Amino acid sequence: MPNAFFSDLLSSIAERGRGLLRQKNWPSDSAGQANNLIDMCRALLTGRGEATGVAIAAEVLGRYRTLEARRGFFSALERDFGPDHEKLEKAIGNWKAAPDDRTAADLHYASEPRRLELFRRLNRAPGGTAALVDMRADLLSEMRANKTLAPIDKDFTHLFASWFNRGFLVLRRIDWSTPASILERIIRYEAVHEIHDWDDLRRRIDPPDRRCYAFFHPALTDEPLIFVEVALAEQIPGAIAPLLAHDRAPVAPERARTAVFYSISNCQKGLAGVTFGNFLIKQVVEELRRELPRMETFVTLSPVPGFRAWLANAEDAPIDREALPLVASLDDPSWTSEPEQAERLRKIVEPLAAHYFLKARLPDGRVVDPVARFHLGNGARLERINWMGDLSRKGLKESGGVMVNYLYDLDEIEKNHEAFANQGEVMASSAVKRMLKGERQIFGIPAPSFAQG
Amino acid sequence: MPNAFFSDLLSSIAERGRGLLRQKNWPSDSAGQANNLIDMCRALLTGRGEATGVAIAAEVLGRYRTLEARRGFFSALERDFGPDHEKLEKAIGNWKAAPDDRTAADLHYASEPRRLELFRRLNRAPGGTAALVDMRADLLSEMRANKTLAPIDKDFTHLFASWFNRGFLVLRRIDWSTPASILERIIRYEAVHEIHDWDDLRRRIDPPDRRCYAFFHPALTDEPLIFVEVALAEQIPGAIAPLLAHDRAPVAPERARTAVFYSISNCQKGLAGVTFGNFLIKQVVEELRRELPRMETFVTLSPVPGFRAWLANAEDAPIDREALPLVASLDDPSWTSEPEQAERLRKIVEPLAAHYFLKARLPDGRVVDPVARFHLGNGARLERINWMGDLSRKGLKESGGVMVNYLYDLDEIEKNHEAFANQGEVMASSAVKRMLKGERQIFGIPAPSFAQG
Amino acid sequence: MPNAFFSDLLSSIAERGRGLLRQKNWPSDSAGQANNLIDMCRALLTGRGEATGVAIAAEVLGRYRTLEARRGFFSALERDFGPDHEKLEKAIGNWKAAPDDRTAADLHYASEPRRLELFRRLNRAPGGTAALVDMRADLLSEMRANKTLAPIDKDFTHLFASWFNRGFLVLRRIDWSTPASILERIIRYEAVHEIHDWDDLRRRIDPPDRRCYAFFHPALTDEPLIFVEVALAEQIPGAIAPLLAHDRAPVAPERARTAVFYSISNCQKGLAGVTFGNFLIKQVVEELRRELPRMETFVTLSPVPGFRAWLANAEDAPIDREALPLVASLDDPSWTSEPEQAERLRKIVEPLAAHYFLKARLPDGRVVDPVARFHLGNGARLERINWMGDLSRKGLKESGGVMVNYLYDLDEIEKNHEAFANQGEVMASSAVKRMLKGERQIFGIPAPSFAQG
Amino acid sequence: MPNAFFSDLLSSIAERGRGLLRQKNWPSDSAGQANNLIDMCRALLTGRGEATGVAIAAEVLGRYRTLEARRGFFSALERDFGPDHEKLEKAIGNWKAAPDDRTAADLHYASEPRRLELFRRLNRAPGGTAALVDMRADLLSEMRANKTLAPIDKDFTHLFASWFNRGFLVLRRIDWSTPASILERIIRYEAVHEIHDWDDLRRRIDPPDRRCYAFFHPALTDEPLIFVEVALAEQIPGAIAPLLAHDRAPVAPERARTAVFYSISNCQKGLAGVTFGNFLIKQVVEELRRELPRMETFVTLSPVPGFRAWLANAEDAPIDREALPLVASLDDPSWTSEPEQAERLRKIVEPLAAHYFLKARLPDGRVVDPVARFHLGNGARLERINWMGDLSRKGLKESGGVMVNYLYDLDEIEKNHEAFANQGEVMASSAVKRMLKGERQIFGIPAPSFAQG
Repeated sequence: MPNAFFSDLLSSIAERGRGLLRQKNWPSDSAGQANNLIDMCRALLTGRGEATGVAIAAEVLGRYRTLEARRGFFSALERDFGPDHEKLEKAIGNWKAAPDDRTAADLHYASEPRRLELFRRLNRAPGGTAALVDMRADLLSEMRANKTLAPIDKDFTHLFASWFNRGFLVLRRIDWSTPASILERIIRYEAVHEIHDWDDLRRRIDPPDRRCYAFFHPALTDEPLIFVEVALAEQIPGAIAPLLAHDRAPVAPERARTAVFYSISNCQKGLAGVTFGNFLIKQVVEELRRELPRMETFVTLSPVPGFRAWLANAEDAPIDREALPLVASLDDPSWTSEPEQAERLRKIVEPLAAHYFLKARLPDGRVVDPVARFHLGNGARLERINWMGDLSRKGLKESGGVMVNYLYDLDEIEKNHEAFANQGEVMASSAVKRMLKGERQIFGIPAPSFAQG
Repeated sequence: MPNAFFSDLLSSIAERGRGLLRQKNWPSDSAGQANNLIDMCRALLTGRGEATGVAIAAEVLGRYRTLEARRGFFSALERDFGPDHEKLEKAIGNWKAAPDDRTAADLHYASEPRRLELFRRLNRAPGGTAALVDMRADLLSEMRANKTLAPIDKDFTHLFASWFNRGFLVLRRIDWSTPASILERIIRYEAVHEIHDWDDLRRRIDPPDRRCYAFFHPALTDEPLIFVEVALAEQIPGAIAPLLAHDRAPVAPERARTAVFYSISNCQKGLAGVTFGNFLIKQVVEELRRELPRMETFVTLSPVPGFRAWLANAEDAPIDREALPLVASLDDPSWTSEPEQAERLRKIVEPLAAHYFLKARLPDGRVVDPVARFHLGNGARLERINWMGDLSRKGLKESGGVMVNYLYDLDEIEKNHEAFANQGEVMASSAVKRMLKGERQIFGIPAPSFAQG
Repeated sequence: MPNAFFSDLLSSIAERGRGLLRQKNWPSDSAGQANNLIDMCRALLTGRGEATGVAIAAEVLGRYRTLEARRGFFSALERDFGPDHEKLEKAIGNWKAAPDDRTAADLHYASEPRRLELFRRLNRAPGGTAALVDMRADLLSEMRANKTLAPIDKDFTHLFASWFNRGFLVLRRIDWSTPASILERIIRYEAVHEIHDWDDLRRRIDPPDRRCYAFFHPALTDEPLIFVEVALAEQIPGAIAPLLAHDRAPVAPERARTAVFYSISNCQKGLAGVTFGNFLIKQVVEELRRELPRMETFVTLSPVPGFRAWLANAEDAPIDREALPLVASLDDPSWTSEPEQAERLRKIVEPLAAHYFLKARLPDGRVVDPVARFHLGNGARLERINWMGDLSRKGLKESGGVMVNYLYDLDEIEKNHEAFANQGEVMASSAVKRMLKGERQIFGIPAPSFAQG
Repeated sequence: MPNAFFSDLLSSIAERGRGLLRQKNWPSDSAGQANNLIDMCRALLTGRGEATGVAIAAEVLGRYRTLEARRGFFSALERDFGPDHEKLEKAIGNWKAAPDDRTAADLHYASEPRRLELFRRLNRAPGGTAALVDMRADLLSEMRANKTLAPIDKDFTHLFASWFNRGFLVLRRIDWSTPASILERIIRYEAVHEIHDWDDLRRRIDPPDRRCYAFFHPALTDEPLIFVEVALAEQIPGAIAPLLAHDRAPVAPERARTAVFYSISNCQKGLAGVTFGNFLIKQVVEELRRELPRMETFVTLSPVPGFRAWLANAEDAPIDREALPLVASLDDPSWTSEPEQAERLRKIVEPLAAHYFLKARLPDGRVVDPVARFHLGNGARLERINWMGDLSRKGLKESGGVMVNYLYDLDEIEKNHEAFANQGEVMASSAVKRMLKGERQIFGIPAPSFAQG
């Protein structure tokens, strides 16, 4: 109720603003809307003092919402709100005359794109932060057709990285006593294993062996930024279906020793590129250790979304010519119901998967799998490769049914991270490494021959 | 309790961090502490990825707190964490080759002082925001002796202006049901009319005709940024003592038509220069209008802290030679108990005060009084000059006992603000202007002769 | 989270209790469970002091939950926990000797059924209140077959009427930001117009022209006791379907002048007979007047659940012989799609409905319709009879498709209530009374002949 | 803010009530005020239905607050609101005819004093519970002069015992983030070791080794019912002064093994006789065990308020004639600064104190000391007698400077309690028992001679 109270209050400030603005005769007809908006943005920047700044900002954001000609608005934003060239030249002159830290810093502030100050002033309006995040989402979709808008995006990214600093985020547990307005978004934003309806949601957050946590920003009420779903288990699981089964028996939390992060979803398109996942996982590990001191193992159960594409296209995939038809048979899901064929596939796919993680690399030297890059970059270790872990359509299509576990051992994270970040070394359990050895035996190909250059 | 929970949790992350750092053998002996801190700051910046960044940040802030050699730390911060000259030169080259918005923006990001990213990363630690605000307070006191640290301050100011954007602030009412931990700070931070003890505080926030509001930032729990004390009244008051009298009878809120802002205090030294007051007053006006729809008048009851100094020193003060001894008699407070002398003083001081506001200017053309600059800059109008409004020692010494009312009329604010910001025109009531006319009669000096150049 | 904390804490007290009880060798085998429970109840009552009372109470309630032989338990409760006959006889003796208020009061306390103290002691256990409310729900269903348990129910009713006193209830608004755990119960408990799923629920509580309020008791967290659904409207509505239509356009709250209470549902079977509805409606009227000062009219849109049954059976229904086939045609819903037949029915049913409310009475003199008794008893006025207001299967079957509006005019409530309570007079609008006049014309029967004796 | 909201709302209901009541012409002049109040109470009881019951209740309570003639009001309450004699006689007749549980229960309900229903209806008004608790406090002070009002008090006690059932109480920690409105009451209600001002309060609740917990009832917002102050310590303390010293060094909570309950205060005079202390201590023990799992020992540090009075008056105090002057020297506090005299006193007072607890009894067989009765009745054990534990004026005067520790060992509580409750046996440590042995040696008197009859 206090929140509602203040949002009403802020709206009333905006109301008043609109009154003031009408006096200014800024036309609200559709022709020239974008121009008008840009004029108002200029007024917001140039007005000395801030007598009615909040009102103008609210008006700009309100009009933007119903603006049809967004492309025009963004183009003007790109063209007219960059750095002030005159000030810039002068600052360069000063730097040339005396190239020290002070003139360098002056140069920095002199060259700030005016957009940044514009965005900061727009943010003062009620609901400003949410409106700006939405504006960037619009921008990203405009940018697919129009790369010249990239400088605006650079400014947004820089600003949001500062505003959504981890120190400002709040971790909240999501459970069945969470407001429906938030839960509705959890259903909508889940990106890994779809949540079908409210009953499905409840199975993920309400049983005693399930947890869900999200990061929130105080200025985005009711809007999770990222959330993670966790299952408490006795053992490290190898497949997703039993974890999500309707009729499974819950594990008593006091018997659980393993926490399984089986789904992480970013929620805000407008915050793409601002990273939260690393912080979220680590804080949730800390929280679970605190709440359940007997918890020993923290792992993910993750898809391998780049595996099949790599198998199909990569020239460095170490597949014997005779094995090609077998690999190709992955295209038709019917193998999942033929145990013998599945077993034959297992023998060939497991070593390939190990190779995919441990040896295969992109041309720029990075690990191929995007999910792997995320977890390994966080300092996790590749713990297990699970054959037939995800037999859903998507799981078969992207990952060949394989799932993996990344292990978060807080005492090893830094070491793992540094080895990965500095030497590109993938930390993996001996079980995974043994699969790679199996590879040599099966294909009779000496490992070095397909090692990374 | 949730807050306590998370602060414990965050502390435990910091704990872990300390463990990791001990392995690194960063010595914690007093010799070379500042150097070690600087080394850790460098590690925080250069570490690719962020495996243990929160832990290092917590360690840096923890060690900083007990650091004796702060001067050394700040010097290194100034010297070693400025912009990257090499990147800067390259960016200048690109700009020279193709001087467009894109190369200008690149130049902006290339010239960012490394301190800014350092501060952003330190902010990730638990309690990071508060620690950084405190660090800047330390810096400001170091800067009194050492102006070369100014570039660090410029970076802090820029960053805090962005982080403490009005859109992130939360208005909360302060009353007798507010936690003691916050009330304790209200007592401590009150800067205008001292709060002597808890009973005194209660008289300011608990009666039905009193209000107090503060802005908070979500990352600074329990720490008000700025607060304003309000008295509901039937009329515009001319003196502070009756408002704060122990034995006064409260006004029934439904009879009040006037809200009096009689004290505004900034709370955080480390946020000096980041302005909140303008936004606070306007939002409180909105809130009071909402809660008490019959409220008609919103005024301050303000000191005139620059008046006596100006009287004593300003060459442009229009004082007749004969009047000088009378003006000088203000030095001895005994006149306050001599009605005739007081009346004689009134006749001479009121026109001088009107002159002080309406005519006197600093060499740079600004209005002399800092409180006047604040309220007039917000778009308020100088409504009344009150003779013998504040007979406290401080009031007599700084303001010659004079108090003034600034009137906030939301419908006039923009117009007033623009006249003041653009033409330097001070909006004042006709009553105040009439006082100025009186001036001419008394001193027999044509007004133009001491008009602003 | 604090709640979770304390419920854990309380559970741990219960845990400890169980430990203590095991030492006592109360068997937990299924044979003789009820007897054991009764033994424990006796221990709870007779133990001087209260060293482990909370633990025993928790154990009793825990075992009761899994008890199969509830009938045996209730029988023992009826047989062994009544008043103490010896004390009673003594108190009667004292009264006979000196029949004054003091001996009368002593008699009162001497004759208290021991069950009452038992229930009060059971209530000390964590979750005790909810467990007792559930126990009474069980009792009510046992009582269908076994009327001898009625004295237990009398004690429960008396105790709950005291514990669920209106002064202890908390009104909370239910909306889309309400925890899912509560919303789930709103879906489940809605008794008038079924809520089909979460989308349906959202249409009832989320749009700006909808409100929902519930009473809660502090000891029954997350459990609404009763709730009312409200639609804001421009006019008094005559039919339910448009109000619940999926594709309706919401009314802007500032244009609404009428609040329509279209559904009131009790939630707790175990609280049957403890009345909340009267208080709820009146408090919601106050709250809406406060939030939306322009609101002028507060009405219900109510079913007439006893109408068809009365039409079919009542001997005093003033139906002409010729009209009987027409009335009978109400049995087949097909008339709703035949405008002419519907119009013919309207002419006959409206006066009958007016008669049903204004003239028909039960043998004990009470108004026939239970919903009418509730609202008229609250002091509302019968405002309108709406032909074809509810064409749902249930609406046609019970109410012949008729709905009515009861008007709550706070300034008339007391007068209306007293006229109804003391003289049995039904306050009705002149429109409703005119319908009754119509009745005379149509049927040619003088009104007095079927007036209430 | 929600609370404020609803209390406003409820007030507005009361407002309306007053309007309705004015129409009734209940005079509000001072003459006959009590009569008018009683008339309104009757109206509240007899009004069928409850159309305006909340309003009448609010009016009754409002008028009661300003009533001068309380004695008259209470007399009428005693005289006119007892049981209904006619119904009672009829119920006795039914019981005589068929003396079974049903007629007995009917007798119970028939004999209920009408006051009880009156109080329940008054409780429906906003703030009703607090007003009734205050009314009973008034009653208790009237009763000092007028014992005939006792029946009203019996009804209050019965009702409050039911309403303030432990299952409805909420435990809250009191610390420096607690609202000032509650802390103010902690200062006011502290009954054992006075809290002098806000700084003193802060020393009791803010340091890391201090805890304070209170029980609240949901209907008495901001009003603690009872609170306990706890010090965390490494050892069982023997004196109060070091615990409350201004300059003491706090104990790190992780090093503490002992929780010391050094002050328990009831807050509401109107709830005298309704016991909370037993439940409070036990729940706080549970909570501390949970929060600080290393905590091993839970003791009180308690005064012995009946000791000096017993020493002075009791005929069974086993004091040798020669020792009498020494005992008498306790009257003059100067001994506390004379080590030798103090040591002489110690040798004689310790055994006497042990005797006081272990042997001395009131004529009715109860233990003499009221604090001892409370803790021993809760199942605690007398653990230590501390010579010179409290040298404050009060401590010397009442307890001869002695303090004791009662130990709460949850595993022994039931056994201790039963031994105490059933056999009157005082559980004590062997150290305390040894002191008693010392007694025999010193006085040469065989123990049996002053054993309890």
